[in-house]
Amino acid sequence: MRILGLDPGSRVCGYGVVDSEAGELRYVECGILTAPESQPMEQRLGEIARGLREVCAELAPTIVAVEDVFVNHNPRSALALAQARGMALAVIGLMGLGVASYSPATVKKAVSGSGKAEKAQIARMVQALIGLRSLPRADATDALAVAITHGRLVRPMAARLVPAVVRARAT
Amino acid sequence: MRILGLDPGSRVCGYGVVDSEAGELRYVECGILTAPESQPMEQRLGEIARGLREVCAELAPTIVAVEDVFVNHNPRSALALAQARGMALAVIGLMGLGVASYSPATVKKAVSGSGKAEKAQIARMVQALIGLRSLPRADATDALAVAITHGRLVRPMAARLVPAVVRARAT
Repeated sequence: MRILGLDPGSRVCGYGVVDSEAGELRYVECGILTAPESQPMEQRLGEIARGLREVCAELAPTIVAVEDVFVNHNPRSALALAQARGMALAVIGLMGLGVASYSPATVKKAVSGSGKAEKAQIARMVQALIGLRSLPRADATDALAVAITHGRLVRPMAARLVPAVVRARAT
Repeated sequence: MRILGLDPGSRVCGYGVVDSEAGELRYVECGILTAPESQPMEQRLGEIARGLREVCAELAPTIVAVEDVFVNHNPRSALALAQARGMALAVIGLMGLGVASYSPATVKKAVSGSGKAEKAQIARMVQALIGLRSLPRADATDALAVAITHGRLVRPMAARLVPAVVRARAT
């Protein structure tokens, strides 16, 4: 099973891919997608979506894992993150890929053993679990953490999406 | 110029298309896209994205108009709307379409003359402005209102997106 973990943001979308076979995790690739800050968010998200489509097409994940979105203390940044998450979900759906969603606490616990682990501790665990020589930048590391979470928690056979959209026209 | 207005929600995405030529607006089509409520939101958004791609491909808009997203009194529903907006922006970007964004007050003012108009008043104005015999359901009417706004306010030649995404890989 090839897992693509995503950490979508409105400026940067981190991605991280691991292969999971018989309980073993193997690092494949990670990186970030970004678009010029000079653009309005409407356009940036569209461009990041195009980069993400390219990543999905090239790396051919079996499943995509993302974090849940939560109400937090900064409503504006929560809205930006929610839009970025919606962007990612659209790309995933358009590519016909399945998606799994995890709470931040679940990710922390799956990676480090504690739902309250610090960011630096998570990063070190990500590095150790998949044998990275150096730490990628934070967005990519976070994406790898989500991918690892799915690798450690998932039951076999994530269901694929079946097309079920209803389109109703008014006249 | 063919304008696709969108009113994206996590359960229903309204769409409305008008042609704008020399200050005249002509109704083309409106409707809604939805996906089974039984599905988790992650999957619903992906399916609605596929319906929206179909609408864009079939109706070939010159430009897509959406509303801005705002912090509101219900953070949970604001997050759901923001995700739906991100979904729509991804589809727009993937299709290589330009996007214009308007505040709710701008839409109200462009359609009715008042930034504080009631929903029912907006709906009646939409109906009158493009000569609909009956009112479509609310999501589709809201989408038409955004399309009409663009038709009434826009300067000619909305710029097309140029690909500018930066993809950086970590090793």
